[in-house]
Amino acid sequence: MKKLKIAIAGLGRIGKIHLKNLAGHSQVELAGVMDIDANSKIYAEELGIGFFTGNFDDLIGIPGLDAVAICSPTDTHAEFVTRAAMAGKQVFCEKPLDLSLKRVKEVLRTLEETKVKCMLGFNRRFDPEFRKIRELVSEGAVGDPQVIKITSRDPGPPPVSYIRSSGGIFLDMTIHDFDMARYISGKQVKEVFSRGATLVDAEIGKAGDLDTAITTLIFEDNTMAVIDNCRKAVYGYDQRLEVFGSKGMLMADNKFKDYYRLYGDSAVTGSLPMNFFMDRYAESYMIEINSFVKSVVDGTEMPVDGNDGLQSLVIGLAAKKSTFENRLVKISEIHL
Amino acid sequence: MKKLKIAIAGLGRIGKIHLKNLAGHSQVELAGVMDIDANSKIYAEELGIGFFTGNFDDLIGIPGLDAVAICSPTDTHAEFVTRAAMAGKQVFCEKPLDLSLKRVKEVLRTLEETKVKCMLGFNRRFDPEFRKIRELVSEGAVGDPQVIKITSRDPGPPPVSYIRSSGGIFLDMTIHDFDMARYISGKQVKEVFSRGATLVDAEIGKAGDLDTAITTLIFEDNTMAVIDNCRKAVYGYDQRLEVFGSKGMLMADNKFKDYYRLYGDSAVTGSLPMNFFMDRYAESYMIEINSFVKSVVDGTEMPVDGNDGLQSLVIGLAAKKSTFENRLVKISEIHL
Amino acid sequence: MKKLKIAIAGLGRIGKIHLKNLAGHSQVELAGVMDIDANSKIYAEELGIGFFTGNFDDLIGIPGLDAVAICSPTDTHAEFVTRAAMAGKQVFCEKPLDLSLKRVKEVLRTLEETKVKCMLGFNRRFDPEFRKIRELVSEGAVGDPQVIKITSRDPGPPPVSYIRSSGGIFLDMTIHDFDMARYISGKQVKEVFSRGATLVDAEIGKAGDLDTAITTLIFEDNTMAVIDNCRKAVYGYDQRLEVFGSKGMLMADNKFKDYYRLYGDSAVTGSLPMNFFMDRYAESYMIEINSFVKSVVDGTEMPVDGNDGLQSLVIGLAAKKSTFENRLVKISEIHL
Amino acid sequence: MKKLKIAIAGLGRIGKIHLKNLAGHSQVELAGVMDIDANSKIYAEELGIGFFTGNFDDLIGIPGLDAVAICSPTDTHAEFVTRAAMAGKQVFCEKPLDLSLKRVKEVLRTLEETKVKCMLGFNRRFDPEFRKIRELVSEGAVGDPQVIKITSRDPGPPPVSYIRSSGGIFLDMTIHDFDMARYISGKQVKEVFSRGATLVDAEIGKAGDLDTAITTLIFEDNTMAVIDNCRKAVYGYDQRLEVFGSKGMLMADNKFKDYYRLYGDSAVTGSLPMNFFMDRYAESYMIEINSFVKSVVDGTEMPVDGNDGLQSLVIGLAAKKSTFENRLVKISEIHL
Repeated sequence: MKKLKIAIAGLGRIGKIHLKNLAGHSQVELAGVMDIDANSKIYAEELGIGFFTGNFDDLIGIPGLDAVAICSPTDTHAEFVTRAAMAGKQVFCEKPLDLSLKRVKEVLRTLEETKVKCMLGFNRRFDPEFRKIRELVSEGAVGDPQVIKITSRDPGPPPVSYIRSSGGIFLDMTIHDFDMARYISGKQVKEVFSRGATLVDAEIGKAGDLDTAITTLIFEDNTMAVIDNCRKAVYGYDQRLEVFGSKGMLMADNKFKDYYRLYGDSAVTGSLPMNFFMDRYAESYMIEINSFVKSVVDGTEMPVDGNDGLQSLVIGLAAKKSTFENRLVKISEIHL
Repeated sequence: MKKLKIAIAGLGRIGKIHLKNLAGHSQVELAGVMDIDANSKIYAEELGIGFFTGNFDDLIGIPGLDAVAICSPTDTHAEFVTRAAMAGKQVFCEKPLDLSLKRVKEVLRTLEETKVKCMLGFNRRFDPEFRKIRELVSEGAVGDPQVIKITSRDPGPPPVSYIRSSGGIFLDMTIHDFDMARYISGKQVKEVFSRGATLVDAEIGKAGDLDTAITTLIFEDNTMAVIDNCRKAVYGYDQRLEVFGSKGMLMADNKFKDYYRLYGDSAVTGSLPMNFFMDRYAESYMIEINSFVKSVVDGTEMPVDGNDGLQSLVIGLAAKKSTFENRLVKISEIHL
Repeated sequence: MKKLKIAIAGLGRIGKIHLKNLAGHSQVELAGVMDIDANSKIYAEELGIGFFTGNFDDLIGIPGLDAVAICSPTDTHAEFVTRAAMAGKQVFCEKPLDLSLKRVKEVLRTLEETKVKCMLGFNRRFDPEFRKIRELVSEGAVGDPQVIKITSRDPGPPPVSYIRSSGGIFLDMTIHDFDMARYISGKQVKEVFSRGATLVDAEIGKAGDLDTAITTLIFEDNTMAVIDNCRKAVYGYDQRLEVFGSKGMLMADNKFKDYYRLYGDSAVTGSLPMNFFMDRYAESYMIEINSFVKSVVDGTEMPVDGNDGLQSLVIGLAAKKSTFENRLVKISEIHL
Repeated sequence: MKKLKIAIAGLGRIGKIHLKNLAGHSQVELAGVMDIDANSKIYAEELGIGFFTGNFDDLIGIPGLDAVAICSPTDTHAEFVTRAAMAGKQVFCEKPLDLSLKRVKEVLRTLEETKVKCMLGFNRRFDPEFRKIRELVSEGAVGDPQVIKITSRDPGPPPVSYIRSSGGIFLDMTIHDFDMARYISGKQVKEVFSRGATLVDAEIGKAGDLDTAITTLIFEDNTMAVIDNCRKAVYGYDQRLEVFGSKGMLMADNKFKDYYRLYGDSAVTGSLPMNFFMDRYAESYMIEINSFVKSVVDGTEMPVDGNDGLQSLVIGLAAKKSTFENRLVKISEIHL
């Protein structure tokens, strides 16, 4: 069987995860790596990858290349996806495509014209717990879903320098939850109310962002989702999901470091939830990239695509507007 | 020791709970019962209570009466509290004092002028689980509380006829959660955003009410509470509470009928949460009325008073306005 | 309706529980109390009981008395049950009837001759959790039960003086678990292997007893039960039950003081199991005495009777013999 | 860095796990595979392993070979370990070394004489949950351990043909639990009482074996362990551990397929424990073989060695004798 020739652009934290997972895939040949940091070359060589470059066009110019995984900084995504599409390479791209709605639409247009498929890296959709919830919801386990509740808190905030260029909490963090709400419900959002505050670190506020937020999403059929976010939960990475419907409720709890219980003389104690997103979502990254490979090999639709990115971006912009104007915002106000 | 002479007005579901709990109280002498239903007389007699009347003034006219518990329909509360206060009897009154803000304020004025204390029946404050949460929050277990999450769903909706005169979901049902948010946080609410829908029963909508709602409360210091309500949860009475703060999170889960686990050949199963509010909150009613007795005997402040009722009513009116106008409402818009 | 006239002999810890529960029973008239401690008289008077005596015959001589609850020290049980039976009074007796097998058999003979029914106070059979387990087992939820596992640990040992006259851990403590094994399985035990140790307090060993023990019971059909006991669990009163069978497993966990969870910066913590048997088994005592009243009123068989006490005593003697001789003991070795 | 050259003898279920894990190890060069089934050659080739043989001596004759992993059938273990030791190759061997005590001792003598180290495949020691329990016990979290409780039930029995040559339930299945009891306690067993039955399948009884057993182990200091086994638990692979001590209790629960909870209209349901040992213990196999590689590379002692295998075999033989003779058996009765 012919192997799929894949290259990776960007060897940061996420790029390395994908590189490692692709390296272990029996149907994949890792054809090359692009990164601007020369140290990444050593990393790639240790994994037996011969081709290394600092130039994206060189990367997609590798003879016989089938696909490229774009894991470089956000501000390169739109440009790289466009170039890969023009070159006819199938694309996996980390979220978001871009923080500008206009730019995202241009990229989607290019993808359409070139008939290149682009999978967007909303990895949580591939988490086995959340997939199970979705599967059960689809099978009607809770009847008609009425309220989706998402708790999504980080163990600690990123550096303020990062926050400044992140697009803010809704485009950087909550966007995963917007996608999850869409994934679980299978519905379009029509209205958004978000309320945020700066309760963790005043510096985040000075950088123009919020660190705590409650968002209510109203779907087209008036069912709702409610999301609570915080940049800092001292007890770890808090990632929970509830779906309440006419026939019942589904709950996905956090994943914990350990599951032991210690009964002492003053309390029962147990381990905290996993602290790091790469531990918590390790399986999701593996399943995600395998899904991409499978979609390319089989020539089927991508499980998450650019349009999913666009929809969540629009919700994020509405949420942002909602907090600035302290009012409910209709999605129709965002669409150009 | 001299016993406290207490009479009860209204022998409906709640009146009977209080009657039974007062009957077992060693410091209380049940002096009489008022009800418009003659069958209640038999009920009272079986408990050895000699005095029965259909007239409130006769009830509070019992010689030597110290206090009265008002458990009659909502539209009698303001009138009865006023008369009891004028007669110098200490009052326990089921919530709400009244659905009209103006009327509540009049009653509070009367209470102030007569120096009579009135305890309001927000029974959930006396639930041992929620009290434990509050105690731990007060001790700083979660640091500064940032987000309070309340899940409050009924096992099934009341008759539409009841809903019509109930004041609507926010004044009838969520008002308990508004009080809980105030009780746990110890803070004043400044803004409210509620979004509701009619997803359970279209008849509820025709009656001008909602059956599902998500409410965001913003406290004076920008910390928040989020409440989700539904009139119908097929799995029982869903009453949960979370407090998230700078140093951790506290969770109070539901109380279940049983706690066994059955490992079968296709699933692990367990019992549902308790279904009926009188089972779920049985202890809270007992502790509540004992607290009332203790406050009267000791001459101390009531643990929940008319002003607490007023505050929650105002929040409820703001929530109602928020859903009608589909916008965030400031509490200052409600105060006359 | 005529009320059942019941008297109580012995107002220690357990006597007071039964007194309080009977006092609140609508079908019961508390006719009198016997105790050798004059302070108990005050206690009885406060509950409005007019008749107080230090003499058992006076107690059962109360005109029109229907039944007597014997809660006096163990060494009076056989004598009092016998006298009550001779006087034709229905009997509730705290376990055990006696520590001597011969004496127990004599009492059973008397009960048979006098046609008086005697309910034995194995209160745990009336615990709602354990009842639910038994009900589910009876309905076939686990198929054919194969292994019953009982964990039964006290929060702390009784005084060594008490231990000395208690009959030892198997007759004093494990006897409840022997009864539970019989109750859940509905089968007779044929062989016993117990192994004990003195790991908590050497003084207990000097008093001729053990404080830690593992017991394997083999039922007539070769299915088994395993019981582990300890006189001291620092985390509270550990009372768990598992039933493993051909179609599944049932587990009853401990009951906890509170069910909150606190997620802090180093661990998740929660409250310990209830510490005191009177808290843990409060409901069981209530249901137990109600069952006794109901059996007397209805004239039906007692739910636990003297023969149940005899069977558990025999198992206890076999367990004791097993530890002394460090070998498996057949029940047939114990029967005279 | 020079890689460790390792070969694998036997490509059955377990052999394939080790092969896959070793293939992903950056410090290992997979030098060759031995198996009597020619199909295994294809399997090995797909993983890029060039050397394949049906002969063990050829395997260990690979030039520069450092170590060999023996995953062939039990009756070849002793012979292969001996030959590998004579050839100076470090050995990883699946448990047991042999079912004959005499033969095991001979192998241990050879290992001692050749100074070759042999790690024995008690994989459960490397399960993260159990390691965490041991670590906490070592740190004194429960004080002095008094009772260890192990529940170990298979989802279903192996074929009767396998059972016939397995050495019986104690040498085939419980031996893992004997090792776990030794691992957690760090103590020697002095006495054993086992009681078994054939409750799952009469054919197992006809094959001379038991399918259900309760075992009490008594350690040298009179503390105890109790193990319950069954060849068939319809709800999956039941692997639990409790350690009860003077300062508390530690519990390790099963690992489940999923952790969601579904609240329906009649029950709360969740997924069953993992069903297959290779899923449940996947991590343990990975950590186990990594530990072997590390010990060989570092030249340190093996974390589990032949003597551990000997000790558990002796306990297993005592357990077997105990069931045959229906009595407690001293370990000293087993030592030649």
